[in-house]
Amino acid sequence: MSLLTVGTVAFDSIETPYGKAEMVIGGACTYISWSASYFTQDIHLVSIVGDDFPTAELELLKNRGVNLDGLKIVEGGKSFFWSGRYHNNMNSRDTLITDLNVLADFDPILPESAKSSKYVMLGNLTPRIQAQVLDQLDGSQKLIALDTMNFWMDIAMDELLAVISRINLLTINDEEARQLSGEHSLVKAAKVIHEMGPEFLIIKKGEHGALLFHGEDIFFAPALPLSEVFDPTGAGDTFAGGFMGYLAKTDDISMENMKRAIIAGSAMASFCVEDFSLNKLKILTLPEINARLQRFKKLIHFELE
Amino acid sequence: MSLLTVGTVAFDSIETPYGKAEMVIGGACTYISWSASYFTQDIHLVSIVGDDFPTAELELLKNRGVNLDGLKIVEGGKSFFWSGRYHNNMNSRDTLITDLNVLADFDPILPESAKSSKYVMLGNLTPRIQAQVLDQLDGSQKLIALDTMNFWMDIAMDELLAVISRINLLTINDEEARQLSGEHSLVKAAKVIHEMGPEFLIIKKGEHGALLFHGEDIFFAPALPLSEVFDPTGAGDTFAGGFMGYLAKTDDISMENMKRAIIAGSAMASFCVEDFSLNKLKILTLPEINARLQRFKKLIHFELE
Repeated sequence: MSLLTVGTVAFDSIETPYGKAEMVIGGACTYISWSASYFTQDIHLVSIVGDDFPTAELELLKNRGVNLDGLKIVEGGKSFFWSGRYHNNMNSRDTLITDLNVLADFDPILPESAKSSKYVMLGNLTPRIQAQVLDQLDGSQKLIALDTMNFWMDIAMDELLAVISRINLLTINDEEARQLSGEHSLVKAAKVIHEMGPEFLIIKKGEHGALLFHGEDIFFAPALPLSEVFDPTGAGDTFAGGFMGYLAKTDDISMENMKRAIIAGSAMASFCVEDFSLNKLKILTLPEINARLQRFKKLIHFELE
Repeated sequence: MSLLTVGTVAFDSIETPYGKAEMVIGGACTYISWSASYFTQDIHLVSIVGDDFPTAELELLKNRGVNLDGLKIVEGGKSFFWSGRYHNNMNSRDTLITDLNVLADFDPILPESAKSSKYVMLGNLTPRIQAQVLDQLDGSQKLIALDTMNFWMDIAMDELLAVISRINLLTINDEEARQLSGEHSLVKAAKVIHEMGPEFLIIKKGEHGALLFHGEDIFFAPALPLSEVFDPTGAGDTFAGGFMGYLAKTDDISMENMKRAIIAGSAMASFCVEDFSLNKLKILTLPEINARLQRFKKLIHFELE
C-alpha cells in the first residue's frame, strides 16, 4: 500500500561526544522515507528544498522507490538547516541554529497520485501546514499518523489540537505527552489524548523504548541496549518510518500487527543511531534487519510457567 | 529452598504528592521478606531493631514463614529511621532525615540454620557489614545477590569492590551502574561489572523497567505502566524480594528461569507502589499476582511473522 510522508528535507550539523558532522543530510521526511523504503517501495515524499540540496541524494531516494513529484526545489533557495550539540548522556541536546530558509514558505501541494495514499505520516511541522496536507487528502486513508513536538504546544496549541482531532495516530515523547495532557502518569495521559481524537498513541521514550496505547490495550517495545549510541539525530523519524513502512507493506492495522510494526520501527531506529546522518540507514540489508528483529524478540521474550 | 536476607528493618516517614505517611514500617529487609514470602516460606531475616518496633509487625512476618532468630532487638534502643520527600515526578526524592539509631551498632550474627541458605539477598548496607555476612556463610550457596547504592561508591569504593568480587548477582540502578563502571552505555557498564566478579547484573531503571545481563545475554523486563504511582519507597527491595523468592521457590538459576524471576519481581514492585509502606504487599493473593504476571506477558508479547 502507498505511504505519503510530509515533512522536512534538510541539512544538519551535529556534534556528539563521538565527533562532529557538518552539513550532512537530515530532515524528518528523509529519515522516514529511507526507513520505510526497506518495507515498501510505494512512497510519496512531499517537502521543499533549495537548489543547494544534492541531486545525487534525491536520485538515491528515487532508487529506493520514493516518488519525489511532491518535492519542491526552489531555485536560488537554501534548504532548511538545523544544528545541534548533544550532551554527554545523549539524552538531551542544545539547538544551536535553526535556519528555516525555504521551509518558511512551505506550502505543500500534494500530487494527484498522493492524495489517495492509504497511509500518511505527517512529520513534525507547524500544525497549520499539517492541516493543509489533511485538507488535500481524498478521505480514503486507512491510517493518518502525525508527529509533533513541545514547541508547537507552547506557541500554537489551538491549531495543534485542531489537527490532532483529525488523525488516527499521534507520536510524541513522554514529556510532550505529559505537557499535552496535563497528566504525569502516561496511562492517564493516553486516556486524555485518546479523547482528543487519535485512537492510537505512541509515546516515544528514547533509550527507554516506546509505548503503544489503543483503547485499554498497552504494548511496550524496548529500545535495544547498545554499546554505543553514536548520534541519536533522526531516531524518532526513523522509528516512525519503519513503523509506517511496515504497516503500508502489511496493510493491517490490527493491534497484533501494530506491535510488529513498532518492533520494526524500533529495529530501524537502533540502526540509525549507530552512525551520523543516514550513513547506516543507507547500507542496510534485509537479513541484517531480520536478525535485529530477532534480537528484539530475544531481549523481551519469556515464558510463564 | 531457603532464602537469607540481611538488611534494614525500619521506620519511614514519607511525603509524596498524594499524601504523607508518618513513622510507617519500612526497611529493605522488610520489603524483601514480605515480597519473597509470596513465593517461599523458608526465609531467614537478619537485622536489628530497637524495642520501639511493633511486636505485631514481627508476628505478621513470622506468620509469613519468616524466621526471625537473626533479628536482634535492642532493649531501650530506637529503630533505624528514614524520612524522605518525593518530587512531583516521583523519580527523584530528597532525604530529609537518616537516623541510624541501633543500626550504627549492627553486627550481624547469622543463626546456624541460616548459614547454609541456598539463596542470599544482601540488602543495601555498608559494604563492611555485607562482607561480615559473607564471612559467616558455609560456602554451599547457589546464588548470592547484593544491593548497594551510590553513597557507598562515594565513600567506600574499595570495600564495596571487595564485597562485589565475592557475589554472583549485583542489583543497582542505571546511574549507579554508570558510576561503578565509568561507562555511560549500560552494555559496556555490564561488561566492566561482570569483570568485577558478579556473573549476573540487574540494572534497575524504575519506571523504565530493569535489565538483566549475563555473559552476552540481555533480558529486558518492563515496568507496568500504572495510572498512579502512590509511593515508590521500597519498590527496588520488593523487586529483589520477588526475584529471589521466585528463584528460591524454583531452585533454578538458568537464564530462562531468571527471566521469569525478574518478571515476578517486577510484578511485586508494581503492587508495592500502589500504596504507602507495605500496605498493599500485606494483602495480596496468589490469583492477583498471577493475573499481574499475565499483564506483563500481554504488555510485551508479540509474534514476528
